[in-house]
Amino acid sequence: MAGKHLASVDSADRQWMALALEQARATAAAGEVPVGAVLVDGEGLLASAGNCPITSFDPTAHAEIVALRTAARRLGNYRLPGTTLYVTLEPCLMCMGAILHARVERLVYGATDPKGGAAHSLYQIGSDHRLNHQLKISGGILAGECAALLRQFFRKRRKVGSTPAVGAMLADDEPAGE
Amino acid sequence: MAGKHLASVDSADRQWMALALEQARATAAAGEVPVGAVLVDGEGLLASAGNCPITSFDPTAHAEIVALRTAARRLGNYRLPGTTLYVTLEPCLMCMGAILHARVERLVYGATDPKGGAAHSLYQIGSDHRLNHQLKISGGILAGECAALLRQFFRKRRKVGSTPAVGAMLADDEPAGE
Repeated sequence: MAGKHLASVDSADRQWMALALEQARATAAAGEVPVGAVLVDGEGLLASAGNCPITSFDPTAHAEIVALRTAARRLGNYRLPGTTLYVTLEPCLMCMGAILHARVERLVYGATDPKGGAAHSLYQIGSDHRLNHQLKISGGILAGECAALLRQFFRKRRKVGSTPAVGAMLADDEPAGE
Repeated sequence: MAGKHLASVDSADRQWMALALEQARATAAAGEVPVGAVLVDGEGLLASAGNCPITSFDPTAHAEIVALRTAARRLGNYRLPGTTLYVTLEPCLMCMGAILHARVERLVYGATDPKGGAAHSLYQIGSDHRLNHQLKISGGILAGECAALLRQFFRKRRKVGSTPAVGAMLADDEPAGE
């Protein structure tokens, strides 16, 4: 039973991450670093968003933040207990902080960010018991596709000679961009 | 000359922090944890804001974030180089992350937050050279007034039997509130 339950959760995780990837692809078309996020609860989808700091003139408009803000406004509550956030790239410090403030129950991410990730890579914010919320974290879901999308974006950017605009990192050989 | 320069900077710091305190007082009247922020550049005031997550249904609506977003929208740029952010309480992880993303040059805060502060107390985010921006930080400006406002707010909350709503901490004996 436990195995079946885990397999079922994993399949749902991949489905939600595929939706986050769709958001990431859409944001790449707008010239933003392709990161996407979706927020769900037991009932289903609450919000989906793509990374958009440049086009929205907002340094905080990472995909995670936009999804959290959208869901909170929709529910009329700044706390979002019982939710799971799916995001294609390991969240940065800002986003991990926001996830704690919103009381998200679980975080699922795709690619790791060795230069800016605050879930596992540089910091382990979700398990710091000095802070007043902790959460379950799973990394590596559809990681190959999530990372490939970022790699392709940065490669294209380098070809046209412009510098990447947001500090998403997917591999050691990619620039932080910020 | 150096002394005179420092004295002048200090006087300007206190004036801007007094304005941030006004924002904090206004937000307390709305039932939010009283934290205020102002963002300035060489020309003067760019944005001022009070903490408002509850009333705006937005887990990210700390005073710092609202000030950064307002200024970025006003300037039409998600980067805010050459700016100084004044805030009455030591910023949390989320806000420190946002400050780095926005490329703020200098942070000046009032009261320390021993349970959630990410500038000096729990983390020293502004001086982490693995991240792609660092900034100058001064703490303790009008700290007594900034802390007294928070203490008074939490005392009143305890009297009416409700729990504080946002995790601002001003002293070891105050609840984190989140």
